[in-house]
Amino acid sequence: MKLANYSIKGSSDTKLGLLTDNGIVDLTELGVSTPHQNMIELIERYEEFRPRLLSALERNDINYISEDKIKLESPIPYPRRNVFCIGKNYLDHAEEIKSLPGAPSQIPQFPIYFTKVAYPSIGPEDTILNHREITDSIDYEVELAVIIGKKGLNIHMENAEEHIFGYTVGNDISIRNIQMKHTQWFKGKSFDTCCPLGPVIVTADEIAYPPDLTITSKVNGEIRQSSKTSKLIFSISELISDLSKGMTLYPGDIILTGTPAGVGFGFDPPKTLKPGDEIACEIEGIGKLVNYIEK
Amino acid sequence: MKLANYSIKGSSDTKLGLLTDNGIVDLTELGVSTPHQNMIELIERYEEFRPRLLSALERNDINYISEDKIKLESPIPYPRRNVFCIGKNYLDHAEEIKSLPGAPSQIPQFPIYFTKVAYPSIGPEDTILNHREITDSIDYEVELAVIIGKKGLNIHMENAEEHIFGYTVGNDISIRNIQMKHTQWFKGKSFDTCCPLGPVIVTADEIAYPPDLTITSKVNGEIRQSSKTSKLIFSISELISDLSKGMTLYPGDIILTGTPAGVGFGFDPPKTLKPGDEIACEIEGIGKLVNYIEK
Repeated sequence: MKLANYSIKGSSDTKLGLLTDNGIVDLTELGVSTPHQNMIELIERYEEFRPRLLSALERNDINYISEDKIKLESPIPYPRRNVFCIGKNYLDHAEEIKSLPGAPSQIPQFPIYFTKVAYPSIGPEDTILNHREITDSIDYEVELAVIIGKKGLNIHMENAEEHIFGYTVGNDISIRNIQMKHTQWFKGKSFDTCCPLGPVIVTADEIAYPPDLTITSKVNGEIRQSSKTSKLIFSISELISDLSKGMTLYPGDIILTGTPAGVGFGFDPPKTLKPGDEIACEIEGIGKLVNYIEK
Repeated sequence: MKLANYSIKGSSDTKLGLLTDNGIVDLTELGVSTPHQNMIELIERYEEFRPRLLSALERNDINYISEDKIKLESPIPYPRRNVFCIGKNYLDHAEEIKSLPGAPSQIPQFPIYFTKVAYPSIGPEDTILNHREITDSIDYEVELAVIIGKKGLNIHMENAEEHIFGYTVGNDISIRNIQMKHTQWFKGKSFDTCCPLGPVIVTADEIAYPPDLTITSKVNGEIRQSSKTSKLIFSISELISDLSKGMTLYPGDIILTGTPAGVGFGFDPPKTLKPGDEIACEIEGIGKLVNYIEK
């Protein structure tokens, strides 16, 4: 199932929808309603709503809104505890950014966790501010985003899969000069508009586990990153299990699982993003997340 | 003014209150009400409610609840973007923990930012879980917590003060073995129950700026940390200005401004916390925050 936040073009009102081959269905049409009609509430009550969502795929009396009439928005614009991130989690990327301060220069023995403010996160086609007065080193990082579905503490590796609600695409936009300046990475990862997410959440049942999906990024059409999500150093199950040690994970939590080689900063000279650039992040079976750097 | 979350002893219902010399006044008695009756909403609408709060201090027709009937709770149990933290922001502390991975060993040239999950943060007299299976190096760090009152982006140093709503005491409980293991500090700072806050928020008008307050911590009555909040390497105005560069600060955001020397990890051998320990963090003019390590 593909779940999304969307707005009718020209309106600023965001709604929950189910994306089908025929267009998008507003969830209120299916009797799916929560106090704030937001994705985190839907995830929390998914088991209750699931039959109604599934039946929609069979019905022919439903009002479909065609995709050209809508704009998709970030599926989780306001995560409750920032976005959980993992640094250096693909071997080839760990090698290309060996020298980044705040982490061991060798291949990490343990996951490197930090958080990224996404308040709000942005969605497909949204503009990333150029932060021109602060930086000329805005970088992209395509990542598989895991959405937690079930609360858990000290989750065992073998049970980790059942805590996954679904997946989306994330772009861990990084302000490299600030990330390096402050050693701990938080600040350089947390600039306004620097967390694009989307285009939709694909529920976990649609993707074989562990996901072995092609993951790519392109800047102005040029391929920069291309890998498989199966190449993580620390697997999704390891990350969920380890991150939940002593710290409860909640429905709606977002874990960005790391980025493969080919970030701008890995080139010599660096190929960081410029005003007007188009950056397209894509993961097989989930979708394409396109954003633009403010001109 | 001293604002608090409190519950009547024996009840799990948390309410907003104004702490006075005569006891606590429930804010609904003063006609102060917001959709979720929580502190962040109160902070957002403080200018609207301020006259009613001030008048309460003059009135004699109000129902005061005596302090022995209540328990104070964390003033902001669910911060919206974790808690913003600054590492190594007192000279003597930066020297005592020179060797901590993930930061330069010398005195920092720039603030070291990270976040701490507090979901929920805990309040006075609450128990900190001993996380016995994961660690034997739980440490305390008393800190002045600055609460943001006014939204701001790229705040100038000279305007920083007007963005402060008030102050409380924070204890940045740290799981040292995990903090060191993962290099980036987030995970070792974010265990469940590891963010005590309280006992109250003192509004900024009650404390001369910049705050020059005695700050101490005691473990089982033994003084461990003792300093002045004026000894920050990066001042509150610098932190607000720098943190807000490119990243909007919002009402209710919490900034822990760093801890002075005397943390358990700074002793040789380390004096970390043991099950049953009482840890008391106190800042002059704000109050005392006492917590216990689970037995």
